[in-house]
Amino acid sequence: MWLKCENLQRTGCFKPRGGINRLATLSAEQQAAGVITISAGNNAQGIAFAARALGINATLVMPEGAPASKVAATRGYGAEVVLHGDVNAAFGKLEELQAERGLTMIHPFDDPMLIAGHGTVGLEIVEDLADVDAVVCGIGGGGLSGGLGVALSESSVRVFGAEPEGAPTMTRALAAGEAVRLDTVETIAEGLAPPFVGDLNLLAAQRHVESVAMVTDDQIREAMRLLLERTKYVVEPSGAAALAGLLGGAFPVAGANRVVVVVSGGNVDLHRLGELLG
Amino acid sequence: MWLKCENLQRTGCFKPRGGINRLATLSAEQQAAGVITISAGNNAQGIAFAARALGINATLVMPEGAPASKVAATRGYGAEVVLHGDVNAAFGKLEELQAERGLTMIHPFDDPMLIAGHGTVGLEIVEDLADVDAVVCGIGGGGLSGGLGVALSESSVRVFGAEPEGAPTMTRALAAGEAVRLDTVETIAEGLAPPFVGDLNLLAAQRHVESVAMVTDDQIREAMRLLLERTKYVVEPSGAAALAGLLGGAFPVAGANRVVVVVSGGNVDLHRLGELLG
Repeated sequence: MWLKCENLQRTGCFKPRGGINRLATLSAEQQAAGVITISAGNNAQGIAFAARALGINATLVMPEGAPASKVAATRGYGAEVVLHGDVNAAFGKLEELQAERGLTMIHPFDDPMLIAGHGTVGLEIVEDLADVDAVVCGIGGGGLSGGLGVALSESSVRVFGAEPEGAPTMTRALAAGEAVRLDTVETIAEGLAPPFVGDLNLLAAQRHVESVAMVTDDQIREAMRLLLERTKYVVEPSGAAALAGLLGGAFPVAGANRVVVVVSGGNVDLHRLGELLG
Repeated sequence: MWLKCENLQRTGCFKPRGGINRLATLSAEQQAAGVITISAGNNAQGIAFAARALGINATLVMPEGAPASKVAATRGYGAEVVLHGDVNAAFGKLEELQAERGLTMIHPFDDPMLIAGHGTVGLEIVEDLADVDAVVCGIGGGGLSGGLGVALSESSVRVFGAEPEGAPTMTRALAAGEAVRLDTVETIAEGLAPPFVGDLNLLAAQRHVESVAMVTDDQIREAMRLLLERTKYVVEPSGAAALAGLLGGAFPVAGANRVVVVVSGGNVDLHRLGELLG
């Protein structure tokens, strides 16, 4: 088993990959006018980082409950952060500011250029390691699994996804044949907990992801502990879901020689990490 | 600033370097008869790992209070672990078993071959990075600082050491001109808390270490947190002491361009890590 350590990526998560690709493909006028997006977590840092790299003004609408450390990190990358109400109120604020300021909205996961950028994770895996049999990743909105699926679709590499049983958005969407909005989500892996997957990402999963499995919070916690003890890496719950699925035997890879697990992020508040380990 | 990440070394600590060198330089008769040493922590795993690599039987006497995870890891490397009383009683047991079984005693830090092995940390640093100005490490018994000091003594690299203010063995030894046995030691960095330094290591420090500074447990904790957040590495308190000293301004390196901090180990019980972060 190999690990693709996106927890060591700039901003501590894979998100800048798609963010940079998305922002780089805007028109000069759009870049000059600036962008706006919404996030309580890693997407905020990813877009803020990408915007700074490309010299674009970014406005991040974040709910007031967003972790202070993520807000501070996002501001640290030079983005303007607007804290506003809960998630629904923040969406309202986003639309208001977008219209008022003529900004381009960047979708946090259902955007082809964003997905293509995330797909570079897969391209790097097959560049770095020969004869990969399978790649396993976590699924939230589905941007990473979509990117991996498409990027590896012309190879023989099989792609699998794991999602929290408390936020089974892709499992439900695959069963229903369309994205399903969950009334409630509950998992320690908040990065995998948007209440629905993107339409493009569902399509990518239908075509290019061999199977999707659910993992429990306990399995995620165990995978985090294993990574901390044996690799000395800090991984956030969302980043450990893929390993949890593999260790739980959720994927039919018994005959495979080389399985790569994407450790997608490592941004966990230290106080919370202490609680998770306690 | 660069980090030399010995927390990613086999066994999670730099100790196998000296262990392998020490055991490899035993005579064939000594190797066949086996070795014995004492440790409550990383040295046990280092010697057990080295012994397995060289096909030598190792007996580890450990006090009954040794962390269960370290005992399990040491057994996992194939060593025989004898748990016996407290540290003083364990020393008595060590002497008894050594005589009874005809084993060679391996000193945990005051041995020239062990120190030379630890010095490979320094050789690798100057191989990997050009124009290093200074290297900073933690000091317990002094084996690592001794090895670094000697290994880099023919270069222009300056060597500095940090030790816990609750276990200031090298500071006292340098002031007294000889190793001083401390009545009590108290620090969260138990890997830097033997009650005295080795005579050879004092000599190496006198000749080859520019200065030694003390750091507080709070400074160590802050350095651990910084490493967890920004590098995503789990580092044990002992492994963070050097960074704590550097960040605290303890060393006169203001004009230096390239300072390398040795992150000497990452073996920390997860429950304890949770407490340290709480």
